[in-house]
Amino acid sequence: MVKNKIKKEGLLIVISGPSGAGKGTVCRAYLRKHRETILSVSVTTRSPRRGEKEGVSYFFRDKVTFKSMIENDEFLEYAKVYDNYYGTPKEYVFKHLEKGHDVILEIDIQGALKVKKNFKEGVFIFIMPPSMKELKRRIVSRGTETPEAIMKRFKSAYDEINYINEYNYVVVNDSVEKAVAKIEAIVTAEKCRVDRNRDLYTNICEGGLCE
Amino acid sequence: MVKNKIKKEGLLIVISGPSGAGKGTVCRAYLRKHRETILSVSVTTRSPRRGEKEGVSYFFRDKVTFKSMIENDEFLEYAKVYDNYYGTPKEYVFKHLEKGHDVILEIDIQGALKVKKNFKEGVFIFIMPPSMKELKRRIVSRGTETPEAIMKRFKSAYDEINYINEYNYVVVNDSVEKAVAKIEAIVTAEKCRVDRNRDLYTNICEGGLCE
Repeated sequence: MVKNKIKKEGLLIVISGPSGAGKGTVCRAYLRKHRETILSVSVTTRSPRRGEKEGVSYFFRDKVTFKSMIENDEFLEYAKVYDNYYGTPKEYVFKHLEKGHDVILEIDIQGALKVKKNFKEGVFIFIMPPSMKELKRRIVSRGTETPEAIMKRFKSAYDEINYINEYNYVVVNDSVEKAVAKIEAIVTAEKCRVDRNRDLYTNICEGGLCE
Repeated sequence: MVKNKIKKEGLLIVISGPSGAGKGTVCRAYLRKHRETILSVSVTTRSPRRGEKEGVSYFFRDKVTFKSMIENDEFLEYAKVYDNYYGTPKEYVFKHLEKGHDVILEIDIQGALKVKKNFKEGVFIFIMPPSMKELKRRIVSRGTETPEAIMKRFKSAYDEINYINEYNYVVVNDSVEKAVAKIEAIVTAEKCRVDRNRDLYTNICEGGLCE
């Protein structure tokens, strides 16, 4: 069987975009439809909150451990947010990719740019709000923030859209179902890319059939 | 309406691959499902056969006209086969792309490589037989050729597979339905590529919403 001889690695699907574009909703909807796809789990130094589980919500580590992981180059990316560290562990991601599972990483734009430096084989998808008006509406409708915080968030989302050129794909999130369908198509297409199928030619010729 | 302001050109989908890979069958199946997609019509200097219609089967032109079209750079590619010329007219293809229709071009490998030089924005898909054994079976099952002709065809198909690296995508034609589904995904994904959506950012910010 030719099929079994082809080593099929999973894809790292990086779902990113400005705050308020709806990347979390899109990821959850995609994962519900694709049970074999793994959501990347981050390492953090912050304390577990009620109900959070080790290895599911996060990998909880103390700062000494986290810093030694930084030194050992164990992160695809990491960042310090206020007093705590957050990072994407290479081991967890690579382990699943090698098993042939796709891994989804939902991450902000600064994080995605760092991942791209370390793992350009990833598929970088920018989730775009349908319009800046809609983005504003979404930020406002959260209802938990002051007008100043809303304007800051909105301004930051606007600035971040400039980074779109660093991504492979842009998916406008006008409806979650359509956005998920586009991500599904992107994943299927990426698996057909010639540069991801270098061993196909070798395998198709095995068994002395290419003489 | 943001949507109407975005200029949406169609995609040139180049379906190519070795003889016997089944690219014709795959194209016809795709076109049946996508009525808005246009099949590229070639110009030829050969005489119309019974039932062939001008502008549908081919554009029939005399050699003088064909040669002046070559001189005027009116072809995406052309080739001389025995005593006749065949070519893909830019005007026909570009006219439909500009209207927003995708255009499918079913073409042999040498032709596809020429198209790529003239129009790298095309999506170049290599249709691969599931195995060389299956390719041999398909060539033999046509039943119209001598053993020598079969071996020549087979050898040529094998040599041609080396050109796969010039393509963007490879689709293994183990079933027509699956191959069509992959091409559909490729088309959807290509339309999400950041480099095909340069005007999205400008448009999303129109109406003073990006202040």
